[in-house]
Amino acid sequence: MNTRRHTADVVVVGGGIIGLAIAWRLARAGVGVTVCDDRPGRGASWVAAGLLAPVTEVHPGEDARPFLALALAAAERWPAFAAELEACSGSGVDLRLTGTLVVAADDDDRRALGAIVAFQRNVGLRVEQLDRAACRRLEPLLHPRIRGGAHVPGDHAVDNRLVVHALCRAAERAGVEFVTERVTGVVTSGGRLTGVRLRTGGDRAVGAVVVATGADTARLALPPGCVPPVRPVKGQVLRLEAPDPRGRPARPVRGLVAGRSVYVVPRSGAEVVVGATVEERADPHPTAGGAHELLDAALAVLPGLAEARLAEVSAGVRPATPDHAPVLGSTPVEGLVLAVGHHRNGVLLAPVTAELVAGWIVEGRMGDLDGRLPGADAFSLARFA
Amino acid sequence: MNTRRHTADVVVVGGGIIGLAIAWRLARAGVGVTVCDDRPGRGASWVAAGLLAPVTEVHPGEDARPFLALALAAAERWPAFAAELEACSGSGVDLRLTGTLVVAADDDDRRALGAIVAFQRNVGLRVEQLDRAACRRLEPLLHPRIRGGAHVPGDHAVDNRLVVHALCRAAERAGVEFVTERVTGVVTSGGRLTGVRLRTGGDRAVGAVVVATGADTARLALPPGCVPPVRPVKGQVLRLEAPDPRGRPARPVRGLVAGRSVYVVPRSGAEVVVGATVEERADPHPTAGGAHELLDAALAVLPGLAEARLAEVSAGVRPATPDHAPVLGSTPVEGLVLAVGHHRNGVLLAPVTAELVAGWIVEGRMGDLDGRLPGADAFSLARFA
Repeated sequence: MNTRRHTADVVVVGGGIIGLAIAWRLARAGVGVTVCDDRPGRGASWVAAGLLAPVTEVHPGEDARPFLALALAAAERWPAFAAELEACSGSGVDLRLTGTLVVAADDDDRRALGAIVAFQRNVGLRVEQLDRAACRRLEPLLHPRIRGGAHVPGDHAVDNRLVVHALCRAAERAGVEFVTERVTGVVTSGGRLTGVRLRTGGDRAVGAVVVATGADTARLALPPGCVPPVRPVKGQVLRLEAPDPRGRPARPVRGLVAGRSVYVVPRSGAEVVVGATVEERADPHPTAGGAHELLDAALAVLPGLAEARLAEVSAGVRPATPDHAPVLGSTPVEGLVLAVGHHRNGVLLAPVTAELVAGWIVEGRMGDLDGRLPGADAFSLARFA
Repeated sequence: MNTRRHTADVVVVGGGIIGLAIAWRLARAGVGVTVCDDRPGRGASWVAAGLLAPVTEVHPGEDARPFLALALAAAERWPAFAAELEACSGSGVDLRLTGTLVVAADDDDRRALGAIVAFQRNVGLRVEQLDRAACRRLEPLLHPRIRGGAHVPGDHAVDNRLVVHALCRAAERAGVEFVTERVTGVVTSGGRLTGVRLRTGGDRAVGAVVVATGADTARLALPPGCVPPVRPVKGQVLRLEAPDPRGRPARPVRGLVAGRSVYVVPRSGAEVVVGATVEERADPHPTAGGAHELLDAALAVLPGLAEARLAEVSAGVRPATPDHAPVLGSTPVEGLVLAVGHHRNGVLLAPVTAELVAGWIVEGRMGDLDGRLPGADAFSLARFA
């Protein structure tokens, strides 16, 4: 029997942006941390576009207040988080505080956008409605037939792949150990957490486990009562290269195009990311239909992108929950902590998730982000009970 | 001075399907052959879809008779060529003698297709017009709104990448030497051919040179009066994977969609190739607009392909001539032979090109493909003088 055993204070299962941010924060608080992932940073975090969108991700009909509080606190923290991450890793993350332009392609889209804007304002978000001419002044590359739009000064973007690189480097520098193996389950004995099981067969003894496995959570064997209701939602994304700055929008552009949503996210360099499909599927393969849907909508909004090089077509799987908010914190098994279900907002929510989860592990209590959260258990697993 | 010198009977400049087929044939005739290419088989031959289409590539308005005779002779030779190539290389090429279905997406397309079919029949080609129901009986995956079409029993397809592999292997087995360097020019002395110049600086003395450089011909320094009028025509191609046979068409399908042409070429395996854009450009980069155009047209014809995995987006550059027929045979410099300008038909024309060019080199005369060609100089450089 393979009884290879190691000890670490905390094992973080899953090395996406969420797991990496938690591991980095714990390590800086003096905790011994191991991250287990067979392909760290190469899941949904890698495919994502890097939108930091507390406003444009909030839609009418959702009970959005707890999520919105979390998202706004997250957006507020991003500039300091990015600066700290860049300083600790020695590498840039291309955070661009440009705001986001939202546009409507036809009259139905304009009406739908109007309703969204009214709702967003109603919950206290800053959104400035713009007519067609104002949209085109802000973004001359827009299709002339765009019907109107809105400017959202608080929605930004970061290069998520650079964030992955920087988090890996900063975590390593802070002493985090990386084990590039998949964890198949959490091991308990008499109802108490004892460790994690690696795919290669060995168990690893550990004091606490943070589950940050995103859409792969269903593959992880968890004790009864500790399984978060996470389902896979596939998203396809294109990466274009537009070397001429005149061929790229100046800021993220979200389009409503015949009822479909598309976003176009420029980087400081030539890259322009186009996302994302929303499919109730679990496979990570880009499809002809997905690429067609994205190109159709993106070119309807920014026709000049037709000339851009199509550099990559990829797909990732997001971890969605029934209320579209994450599951953060304790489970019925002591020492087993969840940080999953970030759906479309994993990049945005990484700093606050790290703060909350590390707080729970280090101080034994979830913080409230300086009073920004409605309640400490708004994101608990118990809300689904 | 770098005066590294080698001798070979013949240097074939360019290791695409044309150059490889010529080299293989010459080697089997006992000629010492060297193929020079920095990326053999990785140009337009690699991007191509592998259509063997003497009929559906012929359109009204072209003085098509010499080209058509060449193309029909080529199509006739393909089954024997493929069998011989498979035997000599020990690897398959997936030649599928299924015929091709051509379909029209709207009424204008149907009228345009009717005119093409009438022209094709008028020049003696076998084309069978089909109504909508007959099209869908032949290919149940067709979009229900397809207006009508035609069956072309003589147009087939081969896996061009397997052909490249097999030609490389067969050529090597026949004794062809491969030099993976780019040739920058042909060297003459006193008006006589003496060799080729490699990019790394060395010259290679040689008795004869076959120029098979496709769209790269303009980059090759050729003696005055020996430069064929070849221009680059970019083509973008998608490769899909449809593992379920019920998700793939049974034979190549060409669509006329709102005036645009698209083809969908299934392999025996899961691969389905979608091509091709026609752009007067020389860069080999796939673009957002190119992929959109192909997906838009392909999904209008075969909507079920939306579920197929998008495995590759690529672009190649075809060598076009003013009359869209190749340039084969002698130049004013003795021993300098051309085999360029195959435009959209390089795969189809490889066997006859090899036969004609090897005949010229070995026997000092261009053949007429058993009397099929109108005249030996129908494809000469001199026709452009």
